[in-house]
Amino acid sequence: MFYHDKKLQYTVRVETPDPRFARMLQQAIGGVEGEIRVMLQYLFQAWGARGPAKYRDMLLETGTEEIAHVEMLATAVAMNLEGAPGSMQEQMAKQNPLVEAVMGGMDPRQYLSAGMAALASDANGVPFDGSHVYASGNLAADMYANVTAEATGRALATRLYHLTDDPGMKDMLSFLIARDTMHQQQWLAVLEELGGQQGVLPIPNSFPQEKEKQDVSYAFFSTAVDGIEPPSGRFTSGPSLDGKGEF
Amino acid sequence: MFYHDKKLQYTVRVETPDPRFARMLQQAIGGVEGEIRVMLQYLFQAWGARGPAKYRDMLLETGTEEIAHVEMLATAVAMNLEGAPGSMQEQMAKQNPLVEAVMGGMDPRQYLSAGMAALASDANGVPFDGSHVYASGNLAADMYANVTAEATGRALATRLYHLTDDPGMKDMLSFLIARDTMHQQQWLAVLEELGGQQGVLPIPNSFPQEKEKQDVSYAFFSTAVDGIEPPSGRFTSGPSLDGKGEF
Amino acid sequence: MFYHDKKLQYTVRVETPDPRFARMLQQAIGGVEGEIRVMLQYLFQAWGARGPAKYRDMLLETGTEEIAHVEMLATAVAMNLEGAPGSMQEQMAKQNPLVEAVMGGMDPRQYLSAGMAALASDANGVPFDGSHVYASGNLAADMYANVTAEATGRALATRLYHLTDDPGMKDMLSFLIARDTMHQQQWLAVLEELGGQQGVLPIPNSFPQEKEKQDVSYAFFSTAVDGIEPPSGRFTSGPSLDGKGEF
Amino acid sequence: MFYHDKKLQYTVRVETPDPRFARMLQQAIGGVEGEIRVMLQYLFQAWGARGPAKYRDMLLETGTEEIAHVEMLATAVAMNLEGAPGSMQEQMAKQNPLVEAVMGGMDPRQYLSAGMAALASDANGVPFDGSHVYASGNLAADMYANVTAEATGRALATRLYHLTDDPGMKDMLSFLIARDTMHQQQWLAVLEELGGQQGVLPIPNSFPQEKEKQDVSYAFFSTAVDGIEPPSGRFTSGPSLDGKGEF
Amino acid sequence: MFYHDKKLQYTVRVETPDPRFARMLQQAIGGVEGEIRVMLQYLFQAWGARGPAKYRDMLLETGTEEIAHVEMLATAVAMNLEGAPGSMQEQMAKQNPLVEAVMGGMDPRQYLSAGMAALASDANGVPFDGSHVYASGNLAADMYANVTAEATGRALATRLYHLTDDPGMKDMLSFLIARDTMHQQQWLAVLEELGGQQGVLPIPNSFPQEKEKQDVSYAFFSTAVDGIEPPSGRFTSGPSLDGKGEF
Amino acid sequence: MFYHDKKLQYTVRVETPDPRFARMLQQAIGGVEGEIRVMLQYLFQAWGARGPAKYRDMLLETGTEEIAHVEMLATAVAMNLEGAPGSMQEQMAKQNPLVEAVMGGMDPRQYLSAGMAALASDANGVPFDGSHVYASGNLAADMYANVTAEATGRALATRLYHLTDDPGMKDMLSFLIARDTMHQQQWLAVLEELGGQQGVLPIPNSFPQEKEKQDVSYAFFSTAVDGIEPPSGRFTSGPSLDGKGEF
Ligand SMILES: [Ca+2]
Ligand SMILES: [Ca+2]
Ligand SMILES: [Ca+2]
Ligand SMILES: [Ca+2]
Ligand SMILES: [Ca+2]
Ligand SMILES: [Ca+2]
Repeated sequence: MFYHDKKLQYTVRVETPDPRFARMLQQAIGGVEGEIRVMLQYLFQAWGARGPAKYRDMLLETGTEEIAHVEMLATAVAMNLEGAPGSMQEQMAKQNPLVEAVMGGMDPRQYLSAGMAALASDANGVPFDGSHVYASGNLAADMYANVTAEATGRALATRLYHLTDDPGMKDMLSFLIARDTMHQQQWLAVLEELGGQQGVLPIPNSFPQEKEKQDVSYAFFSTAVDGIEPPSGRFTSGPSLDGKGEF
Repeated sequence: MFYHDKKLQYTVRVETPDPRFARMLQQAIGGVEGEIRVMLQYLFQAWGARGPAKYRDMLLETGTEEIAHVEMLATAVAMNLEGAPGSMQEQMAKQNPLVEAVMGGMDPRQYLSAGMAALASDANGVPFDGSHVYASGNLAADMYANVTAEATGRALATRLYHLTDDPGMKDMLSFLIARDTMHQQQWLAVLEELGGQQGVLPIPNSFPQEKEKQDVSYAFFSTAVDGIEPPSGRFTSGPSLDGKGEF
Repeated sequence: MFYHDKKLQYTVRVETPDPRFARMLQQAIGGVEGEIRVMLQYLFQAWGARGPAKYRDMLLETGTEEIAHVEMLATAVAMNLEGAPGSMQEQMAKQNPLVEAVMGGMDPRQYLSAGMAALASDANGVPFDGSHVYASGNLAADMYANVTAEATGRALATRLYHLTDDPGMKDMLSFLIARDTMHQQQWLAVLEELGGQQGVLPIPNSFPQEKEKQDVSYAFFSTAVDGIEPPSGRFTSGPSLDGKGEF
Repeated sequence: MFYHDKKLQYTVRVETPDPRFARMLQQAIGGVEGEIRVMLQYLFQAWGARGPAKYRDMLLETGTEEIAHVEMLATAVAMNLEGAPGSMQEQMAKQNPLVEAVMGGMDPRQYLSAGMAALASDANGVPFDGSHVYASGNLAADMYANVTAEATGRALATRLYHLTDDPGMKDMLSFLIARDTMHQQQWLAVLEELGGQQGVLPIPNSFPQEKEKQDVSYAFFSTAVDGIEPPSGRFTSGPSLDGKGEF
Repeated sequence: MFYHDKKLQYTVRVETPDPRFARMLQQAIGGVEGEIRVMLQYLFQAWGARGPAKYRDMLLETGTEEIAHVEMLATAVAMNLEGAPGSMQEQMAKQNPLVEAVMGGMDPRQYLSAGMAALASDANGVPFDGSHVYASGNLAADMYANVTAEATGRALATRLYHLTDDPGMKDMLSFLIARDTMHQQQWLAVLEELGGQQGVLPIPNSFPQEKEKQDVSYAFFSTAVDGIEPPSGRFTSGPSLDGKGEF
Repeated sequence: MFYHDKKLQYTVRVETPDPRFARMLQQAIGGVEGEIRVMLQYLFQAWGARGPAKYRDMLLETGTEEIAHVEMLATAVAMNLEGAPGSMQEQMAKQNPLVEAVMGGMDPRQYLSAGMAALASDANGVPFDGSHVYASGNLAADMYANVTAEATGRALATRLYHLTDDPGMKDMLSFLIARDTMHQQQWLAVLEELGGQQGVLPIPNSFPQEKEKQDVSYAFFSTAVDGIEPPSGRFTSGPSLDGKGEF
């Protein structure tokens, strides 16, 4: 089960609130590359795990860490929306700064639906969608799904880093980016423990390969009709990566 | 931030796995009345709170408890899908029990997408949808949203209770139902602390009522064209519930 | 069945069309706090009602009123998009005012998909989603759902009020806000008729409470690990609100 | 604005309740071919109309009629779910008929979420989605969208007709099918009034055709690479349907 | 099966990249009137076709053409986002032009999620939704659905034409508009081959009309309560369009 | 641009039509692990590519191949729904086989909405959702996303293989499984060409690592409160996988 305290995992501060940046942060909260997604993905993988306890435990550890990332980002959104302080929210008269912020680039629902706070949505206001919680029941497939989530998540975090000049926001993002670095490693390390590409490929490796149409298992197919050669590379000749065939 | 241990909040056991009941439990996980929703709803309300710290703290407490409810239910789904044990999942030959389960009433994606485990979806396979995370920035509105979530959630849990004969499942549900009882009370208690109906109505009470069209603020409108009297009740005559008008 | 005439329920006028405000109004049409939602919610509750006819009748009355609110708001959107008058819509040359409006803050789909009119979507263009139509089959749960809808709906309407200077729009909103005031009362009045908290709690009250885990039915659980006392309040000591327990 | 009475537009009766048919009817309520969709589609087209008042008036008339169709179908769903009568819903012990119905083919959310009533969803439980409300701001495009809605809607209704033996249900469907027949005519009649294909094509006809790449405006393109002739037909030779070109 | 070459179907060039126009183009890619929709719609109609091979073949031809339209538009999006050239994307320092573009009107996910490229979403970032792929199994219904798609699609394309001054973009759109002109004709030509309105109405015409409630099959119903006459037109008197009745 | 012929990429035959298996196949068409997704994912990655032409070309090749996989599966769905032959579809009387199929386990919308054909939806009728089209603008992240898609896709295909006894269906799946084997290799081969883990990590590697909080970049964090040691493994000690740190 789960516990909490009142601390954030890492300091969140905002020197100059920026409602437009509050919108951008939504992508890291409720977007397909965001923290709600990885939180639920790792937890569901843990809860459905039937393999070695060690990986279930690890997924629970990191899934729990991700809840704290959602917390940091939701806090950052609220801070970027300050200046429309709580006590003023409902009764304020029409004031240009607020109206301009809502009308001109922030997510209007952060005001209209949330009274100047974060939503469980992405930067375009599209609600978080549970179909992105990949937990396939196959450990290797899940590890690749997790690397993908952390790779697109880190790409997102570095892009957010480029969009802000606020030292507080840059500091918070430098922490989240570092954790993404670690999490990429972590899931790849599991794949290495499972024997690397030769150990896990093809995924799932429990299906007897003699039942697949093996003459096309290691062949690059071209669909080009212009008579131009298909690209050549590591995938068009040489031994296959699982050591079981020849391209 | 957040922590975990390996215990469940309350025992989950299944005497006779039932893949069809595993489908039903999905509604309590990823449905609009489910536990992912209340978990995120209470946490987002806490993270966006600008009012008294006491309520923010309470929301964090209970939001964290709800994560453990998702955990219990996801565990229960996996247990109801046993009999298609993990080691057999991928390589088994066509066996009637599994095929029948998948084809005949369970959620096929619990097998096809999750390898016999829970999804972040409802009983019809519709993914959890973050737009149900209500956190309006108004404490009274949020408390009513929370009562609603626990009322529909408890209705759901009692209906699930009727659908199963399994003593383990009935025991788990009796715990979740009791917690819903408490949580209904908890949010209503906040409303009482805020002054009850006279204290909070109309929501939001920060908007100056002289700016609303007050001649229609306490009048029941009938849209009937059949000459039949509209229903009469507490809402058609007598003092208004906020003590500010007359129906 | 249903009828109409060509009048609006209340005057809608716009002195200075504002395409950006037309976007904001979408939240009150197709958003989760909006009028399509309450219209369908009250009507579905009526159509599924198996209890006293009186409440079914009332739900039909008010559900029908809400259709007129969608109509007012859709009309308001079209008026705020005027200046790109109908006859010019398709054939006009590139004119800065229109281009600027579409490019700079209005919902582009109001032009691209609707030719300068309202959509069945929210302020971010997210389509109306029928999963927000709560009709649980339990009257008390539904009444709380309805209070929530009117509380978040009125919060939304007052926030829209703050975003506009247009006297016509303020006038229209003052009417809608007043109706929300009444509707909050109306659903709470039903709860009072049902016996208030002691009469309806826990919801659903048809489930025999001896079957729930009663030792946790009135206990506040803390998940804090920092040794700090949980918040105390009406929900941590004293008699329970349903008069059936002690916190 | 809108009005109602307590009558249905046409009698709804069910001789033998069938929970599985209750699921199928959901497609006609909340599906993409369903009645919520046409109701909102015609009303939004009316509310956004800038052309001749006559068509706006007609759209309002028929949009209002469609609300009554949703009402009939929601009533039919509730009737097909009877036998699990209201008073028994919550407190009943586990009884095979209900459990079997929920587990074996009905939409489980009709019980779990709605207590044996209709939802604003389709036959697979997918919520109604407002993006299907086509109201393009172009009368001819909208009329074709309406014909499409009534054609797919009538196809759906006739398929439902084949799935039931219940005389009451067949009778209700024979009425809805007849109304779809009329509505197909109605929208096509508007197109005839607008001048037929020569009058409206290409849609929108306000765009100056000399600005389009006219050498490809009436040419059938083949993407086949197998040397086989493309199909020939009315669309490969002869005058174009708008009288403006030659295929 | 399918093949490709590296050419575009028609030249795409952009003289002055405009990130805000890149957002608008998303509607034509992933919007309900867009090219992913028609591509999948025509292909699914072909793959499910059971009628004359000729129409299946035609649907395959044109469905394949539509893939090339998605390709042109995705290319146009990438070109409108240039100036943030590939090599600079990740490592650039905070530069006002990019930050301004992301913050001020472009779809932020084109940067945050796609690194300056197109998404499978509409102009508001709402993901493409497969429920808009109409393939009803009835040829006449499908042809009307296709006319609708091309009518709303051409309306969209002409509106995009009005929003840009870029000669390259206008040229590309003039091609797509012309193809929409042809495709409208093409589907209407099939309806003519099927016998026109008298041949196909009511859709589906395989249902025996004596089983529908024929007294209401050709009657316009008014729901007006204001005593004002309903509109009269081609649909209120005269022979029905299918020659089978009288209005 | 794109071309087609009338051949399938590989034979599709069904000896014994099985409407329930037709439902399961939907997951491979419109599910998150399905073929529409990879088709669009590879094509969007190609269309947005700014790196070496070689990878863009390869993505186009394989994206085009995937269209043929959707075609095979949609054909397989139609074949599994035969026995309700086309000519009979609309006019047949109530016949038990069809009614039973629709009522008892097949996707009802394959009949109700599609007249016995495939939909652009998953096995639960949830429409395909374009947000699963990952094209991040970072080649390494995209390759991991592609491996994930092929790993979950192959897991799905092998699970479908277990659910059918039909020799034709097993044969078709053995082909699709083999292609998934190859495609897993293909994307991993690109990662090897990019320098393997040392070459691409952390993703994106264009962000200067001195700007991230490097003290937490290679540290496993435990969130456990039960005093139990976190799991140890390749990810808790030893050199990091990118050769840049130490766990
Ligand atoms: Ca994270
Ligand atoms: Ca709970
Ligand atoms: Ca209202
Ligand atoms: Ca109708
Ligand atoms: Ca096109
Ligand atoms: Ca494939």
